[in-house]
Amino acid sequence: MTARPVVELFPDAAWGRSGASNSITDVAGVSVGHCTLREGGINTGVTAVRPHGGNAFLRKSVAAAHVINGFGKSVGLPQIRELGQLETPILLTNTLSVPACSEALIRQAILENPEIGRSLSTVNAVVGECNDGPLNDIQRLAVRPEHACAALAAAAPGPVAQGSVGAGTGMTCFGFKGGIGTSSRILDLGGRSYTIGGLVVSNFGKPGALMLPGARRPALPPSEGAVERGSIMIVLATDLPLDARQLERVCVRAGAGLARLGSFYGNGSGDFVIGFSTQNAVAHDDTEVLREITRFNESLIDPAFEATAEIVQEAVLNSMLMAEAFMGFRGTRRPSLRDALDGSALR
Amino acid sequence: MTARPVVELFPDAAWGRSGASNSITDVAGVSVGHCTLREGGINTGVTAVRPHGGNAFLRKSVAAAHVINGFGKSVGLPQIRELGQLETPILLTNTLSVPACSEALIRQAILENPEIGRSLSTVNAVVGECNDGPLNDIQRLAVRPEHACAALAAAAPGPVAQGSVGAGTGMTCFGFKGGIGTSSRILDLGGRSYTIGGLVVSNFGKPGALMLPGARRPALPPSEGAVERGSIMIVLATDLPLDARQLERVCVRAGAGLARLGSFYGNGSGDFVIGFSTQNAVAHDDTEVLREITRFNESLIDPAFEATAEIVQEAVLNSMLMAEAFMGFRGTRRPSLRDALDGSALR
Amino acid sequence: MTARPVVELFPDAAWGRSGASNSITDVAGVSVGHCTLREGGINTGVTAVRPHGGNAFLRKSVAAAHVINGFGKSVGLPQIRELGQLETPILLTNTLSVPACSEALIRQAILENPEIGRSLSTVNAVVGECNDGPLNDIQRLAVRPEHACAALAAAAPGPVAQGSVGAGTGMTCFGFKGGIGTSSRILDLGGRSYTIGGLVVSNFGKPGALMLPGARRPALPPSEGAVERGSIMIVLATDLPLDARQLERVCVRAGAGLARLGSFYGNGSGDFVIGFSTQNAVAHDDTEVLREITRFNESLIDPAFEATAEIVQEAVLNSMLMAEAFMGFRGTRRPSLRDALDGSALR
Amino acid sequence: MTARPVVELFPDAAWGRSGASNSITDVAGVSVGHCTLREGGINTGVTAVRPHGGNAFLRKSVAAAHVINGFGKSVGLPQIRELGQLETPILLTNTLSVPACSEALIRQAILENPEIGRSLSTVNAVVGECNDGPLNDIQRLAVRPEHACAALAAAAPGPVAQGSVGAGTGMTCFGFKGGIGTSSRILDLGGRSYTIGGLVVSNFGKPGALMLPGARRPALPPSEGAVERGSIMIVLATDLPLDARQLERVCVRAGAGLARLGSFYGNGSGDFVIGFSTQNAVAHDDTEVLREITRFNESLIDPAFEATAEIVQEAVLNSMLMAEAFMGFRGTRRPSLRDALDGSALR
Repeated sequence: MTARPVVELFPDAAWGRSGASNSITDVAGVSVGHCTLREGGINTGVTAVRPHGGNAFLRKSVAAAHVINGFGKSVGLPQIRELGQLETPILLTNTLSVPACSEALIRQAILENPEIGRSLSTVNAVVGECNDGPLNDIQRLAVRPEHACAALAAAAPGPVAQGSVGAGTGMTCFGFKGGIGTSSRILDLGGRSYTIGGLVVSNFGKPGALMLPGARRPALPPSEGAVERGSIMIVLATDLPLDARQLERVCVRAGAGLARLGSFYGNGSGDFVIGFSTQNAVAHDDTEVLREITRFNESLIDPAFEATAEIVQEAVLNSMLMAEAFMGFRGTRRPSLRDALDGSALR
Repeated sequence: MTARPVVELFPDAAWGRSGASNSITDVAGVSVGHCTLREGGINTGVTAVRPHGGNAFLRKSVAAAHVINGFGKSVGLPQIRELGQLETPILLTNTLSVPACSEALIRQAILENPEIGRSLSTVNAVVGECNDGPLNDIQRLAVRPEHACAALAAAAPGPVAQGSVGAGTGMTCFGFKGGIGTSSRILDLGGRSYTIGGLVVSNFGKPGALMLPGARRPALPPSEGAVERGSIMIVLATDLPLDARQLERVCVRAGAGLARLGSFYGNGSGDFVIGFSTQNAVAHDDTEVLREITRFNESLIDPAFEATAEIVQEAVLNSMLMAEAFMGFRGTRRPSLRDALDGSALR
Repeated sequence: MTARPVVELFPDAAWGRSGASNSITDVAGVSVGHCTLREGGINTGVTAVRPHGGNAFLRKSVAAAHVINGFGKSVGLPQIRELGQLETPILLTNTLSVPACSEALIRQAILENPEIGRSLSTVNAVVGECNDGPLNDIQRLAVRPEHACAALAAAAPGPVAQGSVGAGTGMTCFGFKGGIGTSSRILDLGGRSYTIGGLVVSNFGKPGALMLPGARRPALPPSEGAVERGSIMIVLATDLPLDARQLERVCVRAGAGLARLGSFYGNGSGDFVIGFSTQNAVAHDDTEVLREITRFNESLIDPAFEATAEIVQEAVLNSMLMAEAFMGFRGTRRPSLRDALDGSALR
Repeated sequence: MTARPVVELFPDAAWGRSGASNSITDVAGVSVGHCTLREGGINTGVTAVRPHGGNAFLRKSVAAAHVINGFGKSVGLPQIRELGQLETPILLTNTLSVPACSEALIRQAILENPEIGRSLSTVNAVVGECNDGPLNDIQRLAVRPEHACAALAAAAPGPVAQGSVGAGTGMTCFGFKGGIGTSSRILDLGGRSYTIGGLVVSNFGKPGALMLPGARRPALPPSEGAVERGSIMIVLATDLPLDARQLERVCVRAGAGLARLGSFYGNGSGDFVIGFSTQNAVAHDDTEVLREITRFNESLIDPAFEATAEIVQEAVLNSMLMAEAFMGFRGTRRPSLRDALDGSALR
């Protein structure tokens, strides 16, 4: 399978140029790792996105967060919004495992920075979530801090496993099997290339409401539970030197990508976006009053907006197209979108 | 022509049930009026939306506002957001005529309430705008308070003139002629029918980016000025007894409708939404501490969200389909989307 | 000691009328419990505020949240802001123990509602925090879920233990010993009495910057660490039938109370406010489209605003006046404000 | 009279070091002008704050806005919040004269930039307001565009006339005569000096609620109209190279200054803050993708926060102390705070 099934399946749509692996890791320095739990009724996991290879607390990334619909339990957003900084890796998991992942991030940060909570301030753990309850025995809180650490340790650059993996293991999207999806775009501006990448945990969408590019129509999934009760977590990364306000504006455009897929941001869907730049990071212990940084000319930001909507659209499609049909907790089944489409182009 | 050209032109799309005139005026009590200025290089106007037939200051409507992208000059939003109330009609016009329309609303409110600014508080005028500069000699500030008053006086229930009329006279949408569009939906909940309606001034969209239902593709408009520099003003009305927070959530879903048309909320586009309910209005001079009101069960709000995305999508399409090809200021031309499509179904 | 040391110490200030125990529990139905950990270098704990005596998930309280300065790690706020509802008790603890308390709330909710994450949605745990690192060996994450459960189980109406207790055990305020403080006000409106109460975990304020009523000046605490690096968590409760937007406006006024004490909302201070009403609660399983509720006449809301500023001011003063001098982790000492003032009126 | 009456009147308070004229114009490049209208029942005017001496549209200042309480009619805030830019001077006036001042700014911008609304985008006029209805025949809309132009033309560096002048002519504060007040602070950071300045139009505060430094108590003003129905407009300027998010955080601290004076942000008070930096301005026609700018180390921002609270407190006091007793529309009188205090130190 090529890296871009959407190009083969929906050739009439105008897909922008992606990076080498069409993933968030096309942004230099960004790495992704998964820890997948599948055993008995347990179908869940953790996905880690590291903004850079170093100590995230000591080298804080410029960051922003946007809430499309706040029916969700992500943690760490208020401080991102206040300070415009990300100081831990981002973990994604199921809704009830947020505390375990938060605690893992805290313990990891202390391990790496033994003065946290003493001579240094405390640390703002950032964890996103979706509810995989229909396919995972979520009440067992199967994800423990060690699984979070495993995902962090597995983080690597290059191609990202998609579909039913990591935090995406038990997710459902428009009635089909959802999960992890990723995509990227290359922007050429002023003679230089920049990259934007996105990674999603897709768990949203009313069955039957999915809109495919070119008006293609999949065989409909069974309509049981035809309520948008899921969620989507979206992580965006870029090497554009955007400040926090600019990044927040970029995050807003993720919602356009969801809408093109048929989402209307359902009441019960926790739709959150976290974005960061790999440029202009802030050193925790900087004592200089002033620093020279690079500012992006905001009047040229439209290509980044347009790319973001497309990245999110393609990442969600990837999350479904990369997932096989799935049988989860208590025998609940989710069909594969890939099977529902005429899959010949993919084989 | 029927009231719903989209049904004829895009029959494969699932268009929900509209109200009698498929317009914001299907919400009982809401009325709309236009004042159109076309003479020389002047191609502009005013559109008024009245929340009810009475004194808007004395009977304040529950209201909300949402900014999708704040590159715009609408006035009155901060107070709507603080108090959740609308106390004037809503006027729509071109960007540089906002002051004239604001002053008209103020003078009108004083006329109707001679104690404003004396024993009564002052009044929060609400005016939305888009930039019709490419087709209108906007620097002449041709709209004066009397034109605003004319639009207010013309407000009537029933079918609404669409396309190049009122505030929509000089607007451009995805490179085609835009303007005023409206649509409505009927929701059946718990054995009763409710109505949501929307009215837009469409002036946004990058030429070439328009997505039509069923993946239909119009002949592309000329690509000159292929930058999203426009805006869209969206007014939503409903007889659902929503409170201000619930209305704001509904307003957010207008953005999904724009995205389905190909918008990514461009940097230079002022995309604003104002929503109000005709229920649970607040009397200015109420002295009772407590009032019984009706609260809508928010867990049932999804149909309202879904309808809002569709209303905005259809209203924008209407604004283009109802507009003929146009020649404006300095001979600038805008083609008609209706002409660009195979128009036979419409004739 | 009487319930209102401020009245004796600062008799010239105009202190409004408080409820029977001058605490948040004066709001009927609200209960508070503490679990205190003091052993070795551990000086920390948990404080629980229950909005009512029943199942918080099945009977959701109307609620709001306001972030004065978002340098903090509280969880659960985005969903409160979106839905205007509180569906767990509120737990307060130290910064690094938020995950343990969140997990306790989740497990407790599942215990009480075995279908959470299955036929029911998941649950939004709400936990606030301050950093007690200077007095508590915070890196040990001493608070475990069982301590959270103990605080929940201890929740009771009536007088509330203040000072160095529960979440307040290791807190510092303006260089003095801080901790738990509470206060309440009775409002007479339209012939009926209403109550507003507040409870704080005080851990903010630059040493030397404390402003006392009547310009009294305490002996200054040692100036070491003269940086505002703390935080304050504020919980407000009322039996006024306020909706979420109105409650948020009330929450904003908590900031006025802090400012009167000399706070300027320091960069490193996580200053969060959560407010709820005991009226108009929402049943999780309500299937009715419409419900009659009571709306408060917002033009009469000033007394609630004024009371909130005063409640927060008095609650913070109480948190200090009720705390004795303290020796914590590694021998760090905090003087008592009560000792620093001429304490005769208190004895 | 010296420039700092507060130092003489309240010598026990710790007043920080001000700039040369203790005014917003101590920030290099900032100028202020007034146009005062007093004739018959007319007691009103316009005050202009220019961010720099050049073309504000072509050289946009980094800016932010914060709404403390949104019961107000200021215009231009949504675009400031979206783009973080100010592109006109700021005008302040009475509530019903906002349209006249907006139109003046638009016409002035067109005059200086003849391509506005043609090849250039439109312009975002920024106008703040308070309701001077009790002392001014506000219904006459006496302020016309030419008065706005006069205030703009009068803008000058150096000392600023305060009290009953310009937009402050007819304002009331805590029952005393209010109006224009200003103050500034010098910050020494890393061996360099920076300046923050503030200018207010004070029109807020419940009579009897004024808190003076050192617990001094003025003779109370007559209690008629003892409702906080006014407003306050606050403009902040600095030569610290803050970005828009940082400036917004600074703006938030203005609320602390109000609270120290006894404000609780009354329901009917429109309390708005607009802040701008004179550094890192953005050229309208910049075509470079990247620019080097200077970023301020946010971990050192506390002195700016603390100074802002103090500046606002002192500016409001100045607005009252510089105003003489006043007789306005229909013979309504406002006493002078200066007279109410033992005025000997001032003479």
